[in-house]
Amino acid sequence: MRYLCVISYDGTNYAGYQVQPNKVTIQSTIEQALKMIHKGKSVLITASGRTDARVHAVGQTFHFDTTLTIPIENWKRALNALLPDDILVKEVKQVADDFHARYDVTAKTYRYLVFNQREHDPFQRNYNYHVRGKLDIEAMQKACEYLIGEHDFSAFCAAKAGVKGSKVREIYHASCEKEEGKIVFTFTGNGFLYNMVRIIVGTILEIGTGRYPAEKLKRIIDSKQRAEAGKTVPPQGLYLSKVHYQSDFH
Amino acid sequence: MRYLCVISYDGTNYAGYQVQPNKVTIQSTIEQALKMIHKGKSVLITASGRTDARVHAVGQTFHFDTTLTIPIENWKRALNALLPDDILVKEVKQVADDFHARYDVTAKTYRYLVFNQREHDPFQRNYNYHVRGKLDIEAMQKACEYLIGEHDFSAFCAAKAGVKGSKVREIYHASCEKEEGKIVFTFTGNGFLYNMVRIIVGTILEIGTGRYPAEKLKRIIDSKQRAEAGKTVPPQGLYLSKVHYQSDFH
Repeated sequence: MRYLCVISYDGTNYAGYQVQPNKVTIQSTIEQALKMIHKGKSVLITASGRTDARVHAVGQTFHFDTTLTIPIENWKRALNALLPDDILVKEVKQVADDFHARYDVTAKTYRYLVFNQREHDPFQRNYNYHVRGKLDIEAMQKACEYLIGEHDFSAFCAAKAGVKGSKVREIYHASCEKEEGKIVFTFTGNGFLYNMVRIIVGTILEIGTGRYPAEKLKRIIDSKQRAEAGKTVPPQGLYLSKVHYQSDFH
Repeated sequence: MRYLCVISYDGTNYAGYQVQPNKVTIQSTIEQALKMIHKGKSVLITASGRTDARVHAVGQTFHFDTTLTIPIENWKRALNALLPDDILVKEVKQVADDFHARYDVTAKTYRYLVFNQREHDPFQRNYNYHVRGKLDIEAMQKACEYLIGEHDFSAFCAAKAGVKGSKVREIYHASCEKEEGKIVFTFTGNGFLYNMVRIIVGTILEIGTGRYPAEKLKRIIDSKQRAEAGKTVPPQGLYLSKVHYQSDFH
């Protein structure tokens, strides 16, 4: 039987999502818990995709296969009992045997939180990016609009990414909202290149400070040159918010 | 010249407030920053009192003496530039030479945060205490009222505390409020015994679950026996909220 899990995690203390030798990752921690439930037998999990060190998730997904006949409502309880409290299983559901947590993704939503006050907040340091200066929210909103649609996002892909394939992705939604001292960026698209959200936010923030006009964003997309875009903002502001599937599965 | 500082800190990564050999504490971190400002000369700081490992502060105070003639507005900037971002200096002011951050305290306010939802929140684990079950807020509010006034709080003092002096303290304010899935306890008093707030909250929570009636709190105070009170709730829900001085100083 194949199960799909929806999880939240605070990425602060993890070396990212994917298993790496001698490092504690989200994947290795969950596989450890599943191994205990399976009395020592290893179980591999397949996520919708990776997240980097210190990046958070409130709606990451993964699937796994099992021959155990545990009632569906007990899976969530068993996993949460074994997982550390910076990972929470929010939902477990049975899916078709050919469902795939990565290949079947139709879209993903990411959020990026900027803490925009003069003084930083010691309790927020791992959960957003602190930007001290005044930001022009309207200019940033306008810049977001240029992202919507199908574009070659080469300018917003980490140089070291080594992605051989197409860098064309479609963005369905891109917005930027002010919420009590915070600025919340939200992006939904059919796929994101390595570091794409963090480079987009870094670029839009340069528009927010007034360094560039909003229209500059369109010119940067067209240039397809990483050097034209802004810096990569730090990981702790980034949240994988939701992984979308066809409604049959999720 | 003597300066008084008001600071916030996230206590998660510290072995408490007070300097201890080979441990990173709030005090040692601040003294390190002051030493850099004083070009290698050690500067001792005197706080309003200690906080335990993992306990937070949003209004801790300390004083220090210096012969440096830095303009007052630069002290805060210099300290914040050198401190890690889980400690924030909120205010620096010059005080009289005989002002004392501990001896001159007239009252302290502590808050304790309980996260009261069925599922824990992975992003909140270091910032409150998760209590799953339903809590009777009215019974807990009633229990808080028994604390107000001057009492011998021996029943609410950690056994290992070894305080030889009087265990009589006066509580000016004690309350318990519900705020979107959280329960916030607030206590103001002229002084608090070791672990007193955490034992009081542990006891009131047993009233909240319905294990004891609210009146039991009065009987526990009167007993003066630690064994009669509830368990000590964990440190990460506790915040030193404000240190009160005579208005001349602060």
